[in-house]
Amino acid sequence: MESRPLSRDDVRIVRSAQGPIVETDLWVRFAETDAMGVVYHTHYIVWFEVGRGAYWRALGLGQVHALRDAGAFPVAAVEARYHAPARYGDRVIVRTRVAEVRSRSVTFAYECLDQAGARLVTGQTTHLFLDASGHAVRLPEAVRRALIGEAQP
Amino acid sequence: MESRPLSRDDVRIVRSAQGPIVETDLWVRFAETDAMGVVYHTHYIVWFEVGRGAYWRALGLGQVHALRDAGAFPVAAVEARYHAPARYGDRVIVRTRVAEVRSRSVTFAYECLDQAGARLVTGQTTHLFLDASGHAVRLPEAVRRALIGEAQP
Amino acid sequence: MESRPLSRDDVRIVRSAQGPIVETDLWVRFAETDAMGVVYHTHYIVWFEVGRGAYWRALGLGQVHALRDAGAFPVAAVEARYHAPARYGDRVIVRTRVAEVRSRSVTFAYECLDQAGARLVTGQTTHLFLDASGHAVRLPEAVRRALIGEAQP
Amino acid sequence: MESRPLSRDDVRIVRSAQGPIVETDLWVRFAETDAMGVVYHTHYIVWFEVGRGAYWRALGLGQVHALRDAGAFPVAAVEARYHAPARYGDRVIVRTRVAEVRSRSVTFAYECLDQAGARLVTGQTTHLFLDASGHAVRLPEAVRRALIGEAQP
Repeated sequence: MESRPLSRDDVRIVRSAQGPIVETDLWVRFAETDAMGVVYHTHYIVWFEVGRGAYWRALGLGQVHALRDAGAFPVAAVEARYHAPARYGDRVIVRTRVAEVRSRSVTFAYECLDQAGARLVTGQTTHLFLDASGHAVRLPEAVRRALIGEAQP
Repeated sequence: MESRPLSRDDVRIVRSAQGPIVETDLWVRFAETDAMGVVYHTHYIVWFEVGRGAYWRALGLGQVHALRDAGAFPVAAVEARYHAPARYGDRVIVRTRVAEVRSRSVTFAYECLDQAGARLVTGQTTHLFLDASGHAVRLPEAVRRALIGEAQP
Repeated sequence: MESRPLSRDDVRIVRSAQGPIVETDLWVRFAETDAMGVVYHTHYIVWFEVGRGAYWRALGLGQVHALRDAGAFPVAAVEARYHAPARYGDRVIVRTRVAEVRSRSVTFAYECLDQAGARLVTGQTTHLFLDASGHAVRLPEAVRRALIGEAQP
Repeated sequence: MESRPLSRDDVRIVRSAQGPIVETDLWVRFAETDAMGVVYHTHYIVWFEVGRGAYWRALGLGQVHALRDAGAFPVAAVEARYHAPARYGDRVIVRTRVAEVRSRSVTFAYECLDQAGARLVTGQTTHLFLDASGHAVRLPEAVRRALIGEAQP
């Protein structure tokens, strides 16, 4: 599915006391703007998904990602705070980290930054872990450790 | 799936020499605008999908729709012409009809109109008919006749 | 901008101890689904916007809406909780009320319900009130009262 | 607006007998999929916009782009043909070239390819050139030459 080696331009991993932080960049699309001349507020939350995908890829979790985020890692809650707007043609940095891992859920935290590092939008999403029959189950230990950057799954 | 009787406000069927024309209305969402202050061009094509769903519903094709448009009636081609823009808060009329039924495909034609009947966007989409294994097959006669308003499937 | 009288099918106002609650309905679009077979999580937040627009319209606040929500009533924060998924073709009810009016902001609360009244998604959005030069200012008293259903602006 | 030097990973210019072809890559977002498990058909047309932005950037037309594509280079027509679907997590190549420059319009042609070079979607968009008061006018000679790669504007 990931058909070419990732370049450094695509994702950057920063090791922090809070665990790995993964950065990726994106150009703002005109399709993402609204009649206020800025990015419509739900598109930043799509960028959270872009950040989460980069996180999975950066930590070598592509297979888990393909199986779980797509199929059985649904969003249970989302919140976002809007600090400053992005505009068409801007280059935005999305920073993603795991904020909390519980027995049956994982919470990701996100920052969308401009090129000067100023915060545009911050937020988080909480995901349940479902088994093949769609029931919420405990996160397998290997996935839990991989999520916090301690090991590959 | 369609859990309440349809009101006349939802869809209107006009019988014409070219076969049935189905009308439905929608309010323009702020999410659909862009930084030019008007509706972003791909959202009109989503409205074509809204019109197509109204067409299926109006002709009692809900079951075919559920099985086929969602699962095995993929879009093979689309075209749209932009005559005048819609803006946030506008009430838009979407008119849908079957332009052509061929042995293995069907083409719908659409008009998005303002409340005065002026054309905003016109276009068409062509869909293949796939069987359960994903191969393009002949349209069943019952579906073909239902599509052109001659019979229920 | 609102070019025809609103029908009862479009918005319903329920008077409650917490102030007016405005209901509107929508069909789930195929464009709103994702590869999990359900509505992608940010589209419910677009439906919050649909509910907010219905709220403005229902309370006769169209002019405020046109001027303010579009131009100077930006979203400062959003949160959503996902209880059960909506699917293509479902008819969804969006219920909107004003949860809190502060001197410089207003918070709307939303419920997306299925036709049996079961909760799909709940959430809220907080909006600042900006003056023509883009500064956060106090909500004019007339707007505040109109928002809580006490008077027309 | 373009706050860092472009890397080769971002856009590639191929000189051809038909003029410059600009390539850029993107990851398919989960938000772009639908309940058929593949990318919803209008999102490819958003990718055309991504390709067009890459084209403007690659040819140093950022300023024209900012002024014109955003503000006064509206889409007059679009068409797309769907050959094979893209899926979540795929890496897609978008190739953009100028197909035709007329006195008052420009037509871009696009190919969305998978990593093996197979065509997913092909299409084109035609844009009018509007002056500050919104009237269709002749394309300035400098812009016309820049568009076909002959000179900077």
